[in-house]
Amino acid sequence: MPIDSTLYSAEKISAAATVISPFVHRTPVLSSSAINELAACEIFFKCENFQKVGAFKMRGASYAIQKLSEKQKQFGVITHSSGNHAQAVALAAKLLNLKAYIVMPNNAPKVKVAAVESYGGVIRFCEANIDSRQRTVDEIMSQTNAFFIPPFDHVDIIIGQATCTKELIEEKEDLDMLICPVGGGGLLGGTILSAHFFGKNIPVYAGEPEGASDAYESLKTGKRLNNLTTNTIADGLLTPLGKLNYELIKDGVNQILLVNDLEIKAAMQLIWERMKIIVEPSAAVPLASILKNKALFKGKKIGLILSGGNVDLNSFFSRI
Amino acid sequence: MPIDSTLYSAEKISAAATVISPFVHRTPVLSSSAINELAACEIFFKCENFQKVGAFKMRGASYAIQKLSEKQKQFGVITHSSGNHAQAVALAAKLLNLKAYIVMPNNAPKVKVAAVESYGGVIRFCEANIDSRQRTVDEIMSQTNAFFIPPFDHVDIIIGQATCTKELIEEKEDLDMLICPVGGGGLLGGTILSAHFFGKNIPVYAGEPEGASDAYESLKTGKRLNNLTTNTIADGLLTPLGKLNYELIKDGVNQILLVNDLEIKAAMQLIWERMKIIVEPSAAVPLASILKNKALFKGKKIGLILSGGNVDLNSFFSRI
Repeated sequence: MPIDSTLYSAEKISAAATVISPFVHRTPVLSSSAINELAACEIFFKCENFQKVGAFKMRGASYAIQKLSEKQKQFGVITHSSGNHAQAVALAAKLLNLKAYIVMPNNAPKVKVAAVESYGGVIRFCEANIDSRQRTVDEIMSQTNAFFIPPFDHVDIIIGQATCTKELIEEKEDLDMLICPVGGGGLLGGTILSAHFFGKNIPVYAGEPEGASDAYESLKTGKRLNNLTTNTIADGLLTPLGKLNYELIKDGVNQILLVNDLEIKAAMQLIWERMKIIVEPSAAVPLASILKNKALFKGKKIGLILSGGNVDLNSFFSRI
Repeated sequence: MPIDSTLYSAEKISAAATVISPFVHRTPVLSSSAINELAACEIFFKCENFQKVGAFKMRGASYAIQKLSEKQKQFGVITHSSGNHAQAVALAAKLLNLKAYIVMPNNAPKVKVAAVESYGGVIRFCEANIDSRQRTVDEIMSQTNAFFIPPFDHVDIIIGQATCTKELIEEKEDLDMLICPVGGGGLLGGTILSAHFFGKNIPVYAGEPEGASDAYESLKTGKRLNNLTTNTIADGLLTPLGKLNYELIKDGVNQILLVNDLEIKAAMQLIWERMKIIVEPSAAVPLASILKNKALFKGKKIGLILSGGNVDLNSFFSRI
């Protein structure tokens, strides 16, 4: 099935890029000769770890919130997340003078709670299970009329994330391939859209942790699986694949490559040591995938999205 | 005493910039609105952590080696260092097809030994004291005729390091102040030169660890002290202040600001968390100095040199 033109178009992505431009950084594209040598290809890293809130999530969140009508906006927005989407919704709402309710599990890491608080989000804790999360969201929505901003399974979120690959393609016009991580599929869906609309259908690959392989398994079985048990260091990729996302991915991705946590950690350390930049485990998944499948990428020019850079550094700094 | 024009000139620094250009990166200048807000000033970070070998040292080393005559070069080069200068000499020599002998104490961290080896340096271990180090250097020099490349107390090294601030000033023309760390004084000496020759004498400040305060004490007493006991997390700044360096610094620096290790660590964590880049403790000393002396820097545009990014990350990655 081709891309649904009633939902997605080049014009919509370009319009989103304009709308979000005051809310996001145009992040740099970096290279490392040491990593290129190791990987036997040329990698152009789109550094969304330098994005506001430290992750690409700011793109989709700031777009989806701005697409709301004034009536929808008036009571604020709400989401559930213990990760980068929570921070993105909180900051985007703050910049737009809206109230943001963030539902987080009561076992969420302190550093993530603090980050949402620092962006002015109103935190409501729930039990660490899906039922409690949904109940808490429903409760707050009925009390406040706040509007729900989903993390990935929404057209505006996907279009917002597509602006990242649009920028990458504009900056490096002669890429042979694109690769990004896949969790819920917002970034991958957006990458597929921009590869199609702006990149002459450059082949798109995705990296996924073995411990959260729902996208890989969904493609293999031809049926969206969203209830796998997950366990991986790549905490940003634990979410199940979204419905709209699956629709884009099943025809749009060339291949999903699985990597294990040791491979993810090794790639992450390589990026930290060689590029002197901080990326979170999820962001290292694509490089791990390239290093595990060198023949596939050999000699190619590859656009790789470093999805984020939010890592709890307290334990490191408490030890030095 | 003004700057000695027989030793230093704008032309010499410009010539050095040209000579080293194939050997170094023109590093980016980054900003962080979060840090600016905290510090109540506008800071432009010159990212020498992204420099080849991960530190500004590549500038001075690659210049000093190229200034040697063909006759001097033929037997290779030698230096003693367990830090960034060792890596810089090894890599610069490799790129010039010269042999590099690096004398390192036998207690040098494995990660530093491995780095020098990866750049093709021939390592000779000595006991961890100055006598053994000097004896080992002398011995190898008499055996090999290799030419000694000092880490900071040399005109060509200082001129090479000056190219860093020259680039920063070219990129941000309206800076009110410059600040860098001081250890041996190569970077600070070079910064003073470029502030003078290219920057209309912008005031130059330096940050120094309390645990290695020889430059501060030297200015205070009016006499170069180079035998203080040192102890600081900022391992790049443990070296004693050089003679030529002292001559430049005593009239050229506005003020040397002392910070303790806790302040250095806090500034380092701030840079990692907010800028998502890796800097070593020495590189965090200037930001720590600004945060400790906010009134001095309030509302100013400040050029700050992030001197390097070499940190042993193995312990961090072995724990996650």
